[in-house]
Formats: sequence, C-alpha cells, structure tokens
Amino acid sequence: MKRDDYRHFLPIQTRWNDNDVYGHVNNVVYYAYFDTVINELLVNRGGLDVHAGGTIGLCVESQCRYVAPAAYPEPLEAGMRVAKLGRTSVVYEIGIFKHGSPDACAFGRFVHVFVDRTTRRPAPLPDSIRAALEPLVVAADDARAS
Amino acid sequence: MKRDDYRHFLPIQTRWNDNDVYGHVNNVVYYAYFDTVINELLVNRGGLDVHAGGTIGLCVESQCRYVAPAAYPEPLEAGMRVAKLGRTSVVYEIGIFKHGSPDACAFGRFVHVFVDRTTRRPAPLPDSIRAALEPLVVAADDARAS
Amino acid sequence: MKRDDYRHFLPIQTRWNDNDVYGHVNNVVYYAYFDTVINELLVNRGGLDVHAGGTIGLCVESQCRYVAPAAYPEPLEAGMRVAKLGRTSVVYEIGIFKHGSPDACAFGRFVHVFVDRTTRRPAPLPDSIRAALEPLVVAADDARAS
Amino acid sequence: MKRDDYRHFLPIQTRWNDNDVYGHVNNVVYYAYFDTVINELLVNRGGLDVHAGGTIGLCVESQCRYVAPAAYPEPLEAGMRVAKLGRTSVVYEIGIFKHGSPDACAFGRFVHVFVDRTTRRPAPLPDSIRAALEPLVVAADDARAS
Repeated sequence: MKRDDYRHFLPIQTRWNDNDVYGHVNNVVYYAYFDTVINELLVNRGGLDVHAGGTIGLCVESQCRYVAPAAYPEPLEAGMRVAKLGRTSVVYEIGIFKHGSPDACAFGRFVHVFVDRTTRRPAPLPDSIRAALEPLVVAADDARAS
Repeated sequence: MKRDDYRHFLPIQTRWNDNDVYGHVNNVVYYAYFDTVINELLVNRGGLDVHAGGTIGLCVESQCRYVAPAAYPEPLEAGMRVAKLGRTSVVYEIGIFKHGSPDACAFGRFVHVFVDRTTRRPAPLPDSIRAALEPLVVAADDARAS
Repeated sequence: MKRDDYRHFLPIQTRWNDNDVYGHVNNVVYYAYFDTVINELLVNRGGLDVHAGGTIGLCVESQCRYVAPAAYPEPLEAGMRVAKLGRTSVVYEIGIFKHGSPDACAFGRFVHVFVDRTTRRPAPLPDSIRAALEPLVVAADDARAS
Repeated sequence: MKRDDYRHFLPIQTRWNDNDVYGHVNNVVYYAYFDTVINELLVNRGGLDVHAGGTIGLCVESQCRYVAPAAYPEPLEAGMRVAKLGRTSVVYEIGIFKHGSPDACAFGRFVHVFVDRTTRRPAPLPDSIRAALEPLVVAADDARAS
C-alpha cells in the first residue's frame, strides 16, 4: 500500500516500550496506532463523545500485515481511508509509514459496528460521524482487501 | 470457534488496563494474548531463546474477530492450534475463551516467519520448535480461515 | 521486602510484550501489576463496581523500586498490604516476587483516594471495601516507607 | 511543578488505550511517557545505541504524583530536567503538562543506573550521554524532591 492510497493522516509518536525484545515495534502495538488514528478523527471531527455519547463504535474485526520493521524513537505516520461506510458499520483501512517513505511498513483493516451505548444493539452512525468519514471513502475499485 | 477446535491451552490473566473506556478488554489487547500463548509454548516447550537464539520468529500477519466482550478481572483462557507448519513459517490459530464457555469470545490467526537473528533472512524452523508444534497441527479440513 | 511482609497474594502472569528491548520486564509494567492486584481485591472481595459504582478509587501517587530483573515467560507473584486505611484514602504497599523467592524483585506503594464518580470529590470508602482491606492492614512499625 | 522548572520538552501523543475505564489516562501510562522522553533524548542527543551499545541505562526507581486528570485524544507535553548527574547514575525529574497549562498535571522522578550490557555491573556514563544531560542539570536548590 502507498501513501497515495490514503485520505487522512496523523503523525504517530513511538514509545520506548513499543519496541519488544527483538528491537522493533511489536506487532500488537500497530493496532494501538489503528485505534488512535481512527478515534482521533471520530472525536475531533465527528464529535464522538466517548464518555457519554449515546452511540459508540465497537471493533468486530481487525487485521494487519507487517512489511518492514519500525523502531522507537523514529516518528511514524498513519494513513487512513474508508473502504465501506454502512448504515451501522464502517470498514477502515490503515497504513503505517516511516518518515518520507511512500510504502507502508504495515497496513491493515479495522471494522467498527456502531451500537447504542446501553443496549449494545447496532445503531445508525450519528450524522456528524458520517459527515467526518465521507471524504475518506474510496471507490470500490480502489478498496482492495488489505 | 469452539474449545474443541484447539489443541493447546493457556490460562490468561486479565489486567486492569486491558479494559478501555467502554469497560471491556480493548481489541488491541487480544493480540497481546496471542503473542503470550504462542511464545510461551515456543520458549517452554520449543526451547526458543529470545535473548540469544540464532533463529527468531517475526510476525508477518495477524487477524482477530471479536464475538463477545470480556472484562477484567475475569479470567480467560487461550486455545491454540497450528493450521500450517511450513519449512520457515507457521500459521497459528488462537481462540480466547471465558471461563466455562465452549465458544470463543474472540478468535484469530497469527503468522510467524522464522528468520536468522542477524541477517533477518528466512531460516528453517529449529527442530525443537517443530517438535513442539507438530502435536498442534490440525488437518486441512479443520483449519478454516479464522 | 520479604514475602512475609505482605498479607494478600495474587499470581501474576507475564506477557511477551512486558519485556522491553533489554530483555526484561519494563519498569512501566510493574505498575500494571500493582493496578491488577489492587483492583482484583477491590472488585472480587470489596464489591467495587468499576462500571457503575458511585465511589471509585483514583491513584494520586505511586512509586516503585526495582531490585532484580524478571522476564517473560516466568510467572510472578504480587504481595500486598495496607500501610494506611484512611477515611477517604488507602496506602497500599506491593511487592513483586519471582517463583520461590523470599525477596521482592520490585516493591512499591500506591495511594488511592476514593471519590464520588460524578463530582470527583473525596468520598468515604464504601463499607464493603473497608472490610476487604482491614485484614491487610499492618501495624505502623511494620509499614516502612517502601 | 511548573513548566519553567524543566529544561527539555517533548510533545506526547496520547493513545486511545491510554484511557482506562474511568475515562482518563491510566496512572501506569505516565511512566511510559517518562521512558519515552528520557530515552528519546539519550538516543537522539546522547547517541545511546539501544541495540548494540556497550552501556545501557536500567531503571532502579520511579515515582509519580498525579495532580489532575488528562484524557486521549488531548495532546500532552513532557518536561524534563536532571536533579543529579552522577558517575554511573542519573536522577531525572519529569512533569507532564496539558496544552497551554503552566502547571504539571503529573510529575515524578526516574533513576537510571548505567551498566555494562553484558555483565550488568555499573559503568560510567558514556561521554556523549553526559554531554547531552549536562544542560538539563538544575542547581540543588531547585531540585526539590518531586
């Protein structure tokens, strides 16, 4: 996956304990980057209220492919796009990039189902979240399974 | 996925900060459970020396589906099997279970490529690791894509 | 600090990514162990309801001294006692032990102030929590600053 | 502690799972921020080679006081100074700040002992690390116990 494949970007700061005993960012940590870029957009642009909002997004599936290693303290960048914007669910695709690199060092997908906070039953995406995600939607041709 | 689908089990202790703001184990944390059950077996049964061994396993792909929520402080259990035992790679499948439940609350896969620690080029699985994993191999019919 | 210094114990399972690039449990992770042993007791014996209870415990201070290294996948054990059981606050002391060792490999303290969940103003410890902690209180002579 | 009390600053990016079930950055995570600001300076200015350097820093003590809550996705900043620059050890003091706030929302200390990577016996600070830390040393009068 290339930098041009994504529609929204967020710098990602690595942390000392992102590196595992083999000296590189541990596979688990990339999913923390995914959570961070997705929710940052939902909160700051989509008005998601994680503390009291009536509708919340739950992750029902995630996946990542690891192409090349990265390591603290190098700065990274997360690219994001939306492969499917459904009535109650969203499929995000995320790529993680090293500084200046056109190719993702890791990339994956993350599926949110939006639910009512109390009943945990599927609920339509709030309008403000839909509006924040629409500019990130890519045409089906471009949304390869990552 | 069912408990019977797996061949090796490890209890998993949840931690306070496994739970996120929505009150359940965060999606990221399941991958830490995957890493923990896989490497525990590689180290304790397969003789993997994470500090100085000549061959190490690097994760090239991982995936998880989340079926039902879990929450600290409840104890969990990880089930594991091997869907493919290659010359230089292994495909593990893992299920996470709540106490007494026959159905996984989350399940996924994790692909290790074994490499030379110094050159990071693919290297054959050490015999001791192969011997530890062979009892966990399931027939192709049973190894559905999880 | 010695095993005998503590009044309550919980096995602690180490995880792959507890180890940092130097091959041992990272200093940060011991505090996750502290959080885990303390809240496990508050929830399972003290009836703390982390999701909806009216009174919650917030950490206002923590400290740890690191005496000897530990490493995944070795099992550890947390010992705990209460150095001060106040009206709205608790000072816990915790030691982390390797299997079979009488001496803590790390030990520290953790101070909880109990507050009303909504106003976040100090609130008296619920009776059930006080009852759970009373057996762990040590006499002032024994409660050295750790 | 005030912003003016520190000599070196690093922006800190919060992550989704920094927040715990009570909706704020978990007490444990502040120590990950400490590790991150300290080692970033040691690596980028002091030439610390975490993978192969002959001398490494091990944490022997850490401490934190929590004054006010913070929460993802807000950006934070870490301030750092050196309260003691010894022959084989360093006492760092760190403050965590919310954007635009003159007062730390959490502050603490972190003690590194430098050791030979192989023998793990105390070793003198490498000259390059000493040079990187000297500008951060505060006079004894200013180095209050944090």
